[in-house]
Order: sequence, then C-alpha cells, then structure tokens
Amino acid sequence: MANGGPEIEQLIQLLARLPGLGPRSARRAVLHLIKRKDALMVPLSAALDRAVAAVRVCETCGNVDTVSPCHICTDPRREQSGLLIVVEDVADLWALERAGVGAVRYHVLGGVLSPLDGIGPEDLTIEQLLGRAAGFSEIVLAVNATVEGQTTAHYITDRLAGSGVRITRLAHGVPVGGELDYLDEGTLSQALRARTAMDPG
Amino acid sequence: MANGGPEIEQLIQLLARLPGLGPRSARRAVLHLIKRKDALMVPLSAALDRAVAAVRVCETCGNVDTVSPCHICTDPRREQSGLLIVVEDVADLWALERAGVGAVRYHVLGGVLSPLDGIGPEDLTIEQLLGRAAGFSEIVLAVNATVEGQTTAHYITDRLAGSGVRITRLAHGVPVGGELDYLDEGTLSQALRARTAMDPG
Repeated sequence: MANGGPEIEQLIQLLARLPGLGPRSARRAVLHLIKRKDALMVPLSAALDRAVAAVRVCETCGNVDTVSPCHICTDPRREQSGLLIVVEDVADLWALERAGVGAVRYHVLGGVLSPLDGIGPEDLTIEQLLGRAAGFSEIVLAVNATVEGQTTAHYITDRLAGSGVRITRLAHGVPVGGELDYLDEGTLSQALRARTAMDPG
Repeated sequence: MANGGPEIEQLIQLLARLPGLGPRSARRAVLHLIKRKDALMVPLSAALDRAVAAVRVCETCGNVDTVSPCHICTDPRREQSGLLIVVEDVADLWALERAGVGAVRYHVLGGVLSPLDGIGPEDLTIEQLLGRAAGFSEIVLAVNATVEGQTTAHYITDRLAGSGVRITRLAHGVPVGGELDYLDEGTLSQALRARTAMDPG
C-alpha cells in the first residue's frame, strides 16, 4: 500500500463504510478532499468535530438533534395539534419534515418488530410510546409499508387499545414494499392527509 | 429545516459535496454516522483531523503523502529502474501502484493541457518534469487516452526532444476515451509492459 501514509489509508477505509461509498469511491472522495484541503477538508473536519460534540438523541422522541429534548419536542407551535407521528427511523422523521406535514410531533421506534432478526418490543421504544400516548389526541402509525412495518403497527394498535387515543395509519398511496425515506414529498403529504382509522386486531 | 441542529445540517451539506454523494445520500451517511457514533463517527472525525494535519503534496513528484518528498520518491529500490511514469492525477498514480507495475517513480502533472478551459503548460508541473527528466533513462507518458491527454503527451515529447531520454507511452490496450483510474489492474499492467516509443512531432 503506497497510497500515501497510514493516515490517508485509514481515512479511506472509514469513508468506505458509509452507505453509498465503496473502497473505490472512498479513494476518490479522499483525493477530492485533499485537493480541496482548505475549501472542503478542513471545514468537514471541523464540522465533524462539532457534530460529534453536539449530537445527541432526544430522550423524549428519539430524534437526532443537538439538544435533548429536541427542537421539535420543545416547539410550542407543535403542542396544539395533539398529533403524534410514529416512525421507524430518524430518516423517516426527516422525510416527513421535508414534506412539510405541519405542526406535529414524532416518536422514533428505532426499528420494527422482526422475530427472525431477534428484534422484539423491548428492543424498540414502544414502552416510551405507551407512556407518551395519553398526551395526544391522535397517533399516526407512519411505519414503512413492509410486512414488518405493518406487523409493528398492529402490535402497537393492540397495546394502545382502550387508551381512548385515536390511532390511524398513513393512507394507501405509500407503494407496497416501499420505504418512506425514498418517497417524494407530494406522495408523503397526500398519504398523511388521507390517513385512515386503524381497526384493532 | 428541522433536520437536527445547524451542526448536523452543515455536516450534511459538506458531505454532499463529495463525489458520489448527493444531498439525499449525504443525509443517509450522516444518520449512519450518528447511529454508529463511537464505532464510526468518532474514529472518522479523528482520522480526518489527523489527515488534515499530516497530508502534504510531495514537492518532487506531486504525489499526496504524509511526508515530502513522498515515500515513493525516497524509496531506494525505485532508484535503480530509471523509469519515470508521468500521470495526470494522483488517482492515476494510485491506480498504477495498485496494479503493481514495479519499482518506478512518478510525476503528477496535475491535469492536462486544455485551451478551452484555459489550462496551459504553466498550470501543470511540466517545468518541474523537464528539470527531473535528465535523472531518468526512460519517461513513460501514462496520460489518459483522451484528446487532451494525447495532446499533452505530444507537447511533453516536443519539449523533451534532444534530452536523450527515451520517451514512451502506454501500449494501446487502454480503451480510447477511457480513464486510468477506472481500469482493471491486469489491463494496466499489460499496457505498461507493451509500451511503445513516442515519435516526436
């Protein structure tokens, strides 16, 4: 390995672990960075340092932010709607925010139920969700339209039965088998507007 | 923009400027990093800090390394071959090293002549190449098989006329219009072995 020193080689190997980058594209990215040392590499290094120091997971909803509770949880304009949107992942929360779905709050499950992968209710933030539920008038289960996502939605509906909170899911319009983070903003907005009641069990 | 705080947003925007990453994949990369904070984000941040501090451009050949002159220029095993390989870019140098072309030295031009883009001989390291040429028995012009690459090869051949140094180019075998960094190692090795003499003018 004569591709520069160990510092460069290590940087390539770490960048290659990012989604969407492999060993070859990581090498190109590192050369790109080195050529633009002052314009890109130094700012990126500083931004990463700051993010490492600042980033934390919101203890209320599971969102990623630089404060906990996060900006969304402490936003007074979002208090009135009474709408809690349950998502699998922070990427889905960000996708809904980009879609401009309005003054809502979120709950990040941290995944979906998947017995084959050994992921049960205790591996998700379902207990925290049950604890928060009473504070809202409606809970929208905005999970992916996959088998695991729908299984998780039914499980949560069962657990919330008798809580008096209205439970809905996103309208069909989300393509079957599709994932929220890949949808266009228009489809996401429409699916939220046309949300339908979830019938238990 | 409620995608986390400004630290997260800035990190996304900087990562989106890497080749192969756009705004969407940069967001996914940042979430990937945050979820693996200790295993990936902190090491990447440290590696980037170290690389920023350590990386320098070799004042002899233009290679990127953590010392100048670089490891290749100071490698005594490479002194005997008398072979200098001229490449457009550091990525091409790395590609040739990966191909295991042997105990050679390099000269990175930093681009190719391109009058349309306003890139003339003074924007490349051609003067430095002329200064180094006498120390070698053979100079291989391993530029890309593009119009600009071949124009640059002919220009360098003209400038080196009368120097007594043998000037060669890579064998045909490099696909016309192709770029070195994308070739497989076998093709690169063969192209170097079958190099042919460059006839001036």
